[in-house]
Amino acid sequence: MNIVLLGSGNTATVLAKLMVAKQHSIVQVWSRTFANAHELTSKVGGIAIEFLTDITKEADLYMIAVTDGIVNDIADQLQLKNKIVVHTAGSVSKDVLSSASANYGVLYPLQSLRKDMTTVPEIPFLIDANSEDVKVLLYDFAKELSGSVAFANDEERLHMHLAAVVVNNFTNHLYAIAENLCKQQPLNFQMLLPLIQETAHRLTQVSAIDAQTGPARRGDGATINKHLHLLKENEKIQFIYQTLSNSILDMYHKKEELR
Amino acid sequence: MNIVLLGSGNTATVLAKLMVAKQHSIVQVWSRTFANAHELTSKVGGIAIEFLTDITKEADLYMIAVTDGIVNDIADQLQLKNKIVVHTAGSVSKDVLSSASANYGVLYPLQSLRKDMTTVPEIPFLIDANSEDVKVLLYDFAKELSGSVAFANDEERLHMHLAAVVVNNFTNHLYAIAENLCKQQPLNFQMLLPLIQETAHRLTQVSAIDAQTGPARRGDGATINKHLHLLKENEKIQFIYQTLSNSILDMYHKKEELR
Repeated sequence: MNIVLLGSGNTATVLAKLMVAKQHSIVQVWSRTFANAHELTSKVGGIAIEFLTDITKEADLYMIAVTDGIVNDIADQLQLKNKIVVHTAGSVSKDVLSSASANYGVLYPLQSLRKDMTTVPEIPFLIDANSEDVKVLLYDFAKELSGSVAFANDEERLHMHLAAVVVNNFTNHLYAIAENLCKQQPLNFQMLLPLIQETAHRLTQVSAIDAQTGPARRGDGATINKHLHLLKENEKIQFIYQTLSNSILDMYHKKEELR
Repeated sequence: MNIVLLGSGNTATVLAKLMVAKQHSIVQVWSRTFANAHELTSKVGGIAIEFLTDITKEADLYMIAVTDGIVNDIADQLQLKNKIVVHTAGSVSKDVLSSASANYGVLYPLQSLRKDMTTVPEIPFLIDANSEDVKVLLYDFAKELSGSVAFANDEERLHMHLAAVVVNNFTNHLYAIAENLCKQQPLNFQMLLPLIQETAHRLTQVSAIDAQTGPARRGDGATINKHLHLLKENEKIQFIYQTLSNSILDMYHKKEELR
């Protein structure tokens, strides 16, 4: 397909490379910052354009791959009649595209993408569209890009986006908290990497609910109290420790909570 | 070395297999449940013993690999003079071993170990001992078992144990929360596994503090509110969402917190 790409950030860049690798063509790239559009075309081909009014009417697919908060703004400026327009946002309704075209949908990559990735990880896609025809077309397109594709309507996609925030953004924040705790000692945070990898890897073999271990899981108040004592001058982290330990106690013990 | 192993759980089992693979011998295994000791000897050799009084005085190393809360109890029942006695617990002082022998230390595996592991992941070790001689001996021994070995005193080990709880137990709890959120829809939690792996893998390339993304990282209140709304009938998870989002806002924005 001939594709017009709106956006030049992490998602736009990785998906463009992936599409080009599958013999699709990026014909135009637009970005709020023209230099970024230009930079992306130098990698994936196509012409960088400065104004949304310069968009060709002749492409097969128009992909809005920008941060969730501005999908709506960009869609409002497009007039593409029956052309297929998609966005890639987890938390935005497909219907913000209804003013841009009569045929629209969503291709949401359920992955954390970064421009500078040297190898592209597996990217599951959630697909939606305003008609069965477009759904099927987008499904087949996504299947070329990924082994893992499923349909999800706006509400389902938002729920999956929430779950993705929990396992990606919140998990990374826990890593950052541990990194800071190590720096304060100092201890070598790198020594935790095998444990972090193993914790993630285990999910391929056992359910997270069944895999739970640790002081809160076994109701070991003595160890929990030792940890809370270590955090006595770090109230915010102590509060997170209590909140998550209480949640584990609640899930497995239905016991009285800490403090 | 000839090793007496006290314990037959996850840590004892995996370390026994690892030691045997490096040509050490397990001469005896004691467990609170004799059948478990017997089962472990069937895998790694040695004789299962029922009573702590049956422990040979002729081994080179006595390893107490039991849950943190009972290390002290077992140590109190040992009389091993100058023999080297170690425990494997992150949160227990080495000095609980002082009544058992004049030579003692700690070999703390910084990894989540399970009996049923088919392949053993990398296991970093933190080492401590009550003398330089024992420290060096334990360091060299751990180096045979692992590429990643460091010294850490009681306090440092407890801090690392706390960090391990954060990146392993708390992270797994977030996975469990996401698994439950998916079940409620239902959505396929398995589709999140590539994202989970990527989040963990990224730490080999970039610091967790720098790798942070997501609605809270970019101060995207609209998306945060959509998620909080989805969780309106799930108050406990909503509270965890708010707590972690506030912590991210605090780390990167020093902004007013949610609600």
